[in-house]
Amino acid sequence: MGIFSADIKTMDDLFLHGLQDIYYAESQITKALPKMIELATNRDLSTGLRTHLQETEGQIKRLEQVFEKLGQEPKGTACPAIDGIIKEANETSGEVENKAVLDAAIVANCQAVEHYEIARYGTLIAWAEELGHDEVVRFLTTNLNEEKAANTKLNTVALRKGVNTKASNAA
Amino acid sequence: MGIFSADIKTMDDLFLHGLQDIYYAESQITKALPKMIELATNRDLSTGLRTHLQETEGQIKRLEQVFEKLGQEPKGTACPAIDGIIKEANETSGEVENKAVLDAAIVANCQAVEHYEIARYGTLIAWAEELGHDEVVRFLTTNLNEEKAANTKLNTVALRKGVNTKASNAA
Repeated sequence: MGIFSADIKTMDDLFLHGLQDIYYAESQITKALPKMIELATNRDLSTGLRTHLQETEGQIKRLEQVFEKLGQEPKGTACPAIDGIIKEANETSGEVENKAVLDAAIVANCQAVEHYEIARYGTLIAWAEELGHDEVVRFLTTNLNEEKAANTKLNTVALRKGVNTKASNAA
Repeated sequence: MGIFSADIKTMDDLFLHGLQDIYYAESQITKALPKMIELATNRDLSTGLRTHLQETEGQIKRLEQVFEKLGQEPKGTACPAIDGIIKEANETSGEVENKAVLDAAIVANCQAVEHYEIARYGTLIAWAEELGHDEVVRFLTTNLNEEKAANTKLNTVALRKGVNTKASNAA
């Protein structure tokens, strides 16, 4: 959230601001994911990230429908939180040479991204319900469920497919 | 993660780096919480944040014990993620005048912080288990459980105690 913050006077303003925040965040994630996909060596991980990139593009379209339902232009607002999470992910990825350790770092950083989105969508759904935007709740819930599923899939990659174990052995 | 990233060669390095990241994050959270407590008007919210500030100080001590168990000096490392989340929280808080809307924004931003910590502790516990640091797992799990409980308590404040409803009516 940033330059438009001074306009936050009501819950409707705060809700709109939150939508602009996650709209910007999703857009930054579509820019960050291709690099992570390129770096990932575990096949389940790269496939999962590729699927999630497609999902994210769908989520952006769903957010655009939300703006439309509210009679608003789709618009992002600066979001230092997602910028920081992605910056941290890029800094780490760029500095780890061992492929298996890098995969473990990528999983960890993608889970930090997912958790940020889960937090924001959870809040937005609560606010949309209170403001009586029932149709909007449906769109946001679909996005939230996709983020939760993506996070669970990352757990599976990390814990069951042996990303961490391989990384640990490689050490 | 930041200036020490070049040293990440093994899973042990990545694990230590993750510990330094969350150690820095917890420290920044103890600096950010007093301002949020001062701004919060809902009594359940300010009481909850005050309790969580004390918990966070305990979590830092627990992390220091983790460093000790690993034969390492407790040390933080730059964490753009938590810096970004806190920057966003401060920017929003500083720009909302209506007290009830501000409470809703504070709850949302604290939940973003909690979710970041939940993601990081979840990862660190998985890595500690794989690296065989059983005693460390216990300390980290206590911290994770406190973060999850704090997040649940924020949900209760937001949804059952009427922070959002009041903010919505105020709008």
